[in-house]
Amino acid sequence: MPNNDPRLEHRLIHRCRQDGVHEVDDPVTVEEPMEIRVDGHSVAVVMRTPGDDLDLTRGFLLTEGIVSDRDDIFEISQCPSQTDDESRGNVVDVILTHPEAVDLEQLSRHVFTSSSCGLCGRATIESVFQQFSPVVSDLAISQELIMRLPDLLRSAQKTFAQTGGLHASALFNNEGSLQTLREDVGRHNALDKVIGSAWDRGWLPLKSHILLVSGRISFELTQKALCAGIPLIAGISAPSTLAIDCAEAGNQCLIGFLRDRGMNIYAHPERVSAQS
Amino acid sequence: MPNNDPRLEHRLIHRCRQDGVHEVDDPVTVEEPMEIRVDGHSVAVVMRTPGDDLDLTRGFLLTEGIVSDRDDIFEISQCPSQTDDESRGNVVDVILTHPEAVDLEQLSRHVFTSSSCGLCGRATIESVFQQFSPVVSDLAISQELIMRLPDLLRSAQKTFAQTGGLHASALFNNEGSLQTLREDVGRHNALDKVIGSAWDRGWLPLKSHILLVSGRISFELTQKALCAGIPLIAGISAPSTLAIDCAEAGNQCLIGFLRDRGMNIYAHPERVSAQS
Repeated sequence: MPNNDPRLEHRLIHRCRQDGVHEVDDPVTVEEPMEIRVDGHSVAVVMRTPGDDLDLTRGFLLTEGIVSDRDDIFEISQCPSQTDDESRGNVVDVILTHPEAVDLEQLSRHVFTSSSCGLCGRATIESVFQQFSPVVSDLAISQELIMRLPDLLRSAQKTFAQTGGLHASALFNNEGSLQTLREDVGRHNALDKVIGSAWDRGWLPLKSHILLVSGRISFELTQKALCAGIPLIAGISAPSTLAIDCAEAGNQCLIGFLRDRGMNIYAHPERVSAQS
Repeated sequence: MPNNDPRLEHRLIHRCRQDGVHEVDDPVTVEEPMEIRVDGHSVAVVMRTPGDDLDLTRGFLLTEGIVSDRDDIFEISQCPSQTDDESRGNVVDVILTHPEAVDLEQLSRHVFTSSSCGLCGRATIESVFQQFSPVVSDLAISQELIMRLPDLLRSAQKTFAQTGGLHASALFNNEGSLQTLREDVGRHNALDKVIGSAWDRGWLPLKSHILLVSGRISFELTQKALCAGIPLIAGISAPSTLAIDCAEAGNQCLIGFLRDRGMNIYAHPERVSAQS
């Protein structure tokens, strides 16, 4: 299927509905790291969907308080000169008009940054696997059991029901019994709380557990789940391309759109069995 | 109303429905900064919902690759000794068993961090207003016009409709006409793209514009909107306490749950007029 939109990639997925399982080519949101360099200094790596990258850079520099006037930016350009084709376009170079007015040493603390990110999806995933190993587990769960999890999550989510303002992260055992549920305004925090709690109880690696998250599945969530050794990650909403790639490499089953008695399997479908 | 749950605070809001506007006391998700200190070094400030803070710290240190074994943590404690009452509990101190094994200089770049955060909500907001001034605008928009915006956003959101995986951020003028729409896997990125684009076109400060975001409204979104001078922020879902406090101080109208021909007004309701 032709696709000129840098924000979309088509992936082969397993779509499970009442009438069976179908292999389909489905559009997925692209997630890629982008590095912002100011006068040659790397000040941030943001995980973003490609497109409007110069606007993203301008908005980032302005709203993070690094520049305050349009004239502060002398030049802004997307680096086409990377030797690695895959990282093409994932670096934006900014030249300041008055570099002496900005403390670049301060910047690297001021902005949101993570040195674990590479400059393309592949490098990013490689850097993850330098830290964490693929999951070792032969866990397989029935489709029927997985489809029951969202209702169990909802009935346990007391604060969310009250405010609608919290992300939830929940750990189930291989029989579908809720082990830990944490809620937070930040989706990463909710998962960190779940993993921190399980770790403290000596449960890691969580090789026979299922992770269910209330929203979208980004790269960072699969990375954290990999660290905890979780073989099956399910979300109520959509995953990103980088989350799928990370789960694929990490031997993790990745399920999205787990709702209304259906789900899409994006990686390692062999962990989902048809029988109940 | 008594409330012992640290994750919730009750706020007086204006609830607009078909049958009129009612002042009600509504539960809102708490958002507060928490600082993680390792051997006395500040390694991260995370915006989180209070509760399970030690688990959050454990999970963060593990999944960010700072420690790898439970024995690496000698002691973990929530600092009760702050002199400022409001910041009580918002600092977690970690003592490592083998401090020499961790490069603390590296840490401050490795983790997600922002020096703009204080240690309590009040200090955080004060630090924002050291950078950005309250919005100067007499913008008032009719309830009827505001309620039409979600449909306009949805019909313009092509990628979201395809993948379900993108956050949207949109700018409307005071007549309800869509000016800019950007989508991204990250909600902050979508807003940075909108603001960067408007800035590049010489539109800032956006004193007669309305911002509509597709999801929840966190503190950082209101902070970015403040930087761009936007007097009215609306979201399809819930705001956090710190977002409300920031909007209140910034002279910004904050609207949440803008859906199904209804909305909740959390700050500066005088910017919403009844007549169409």
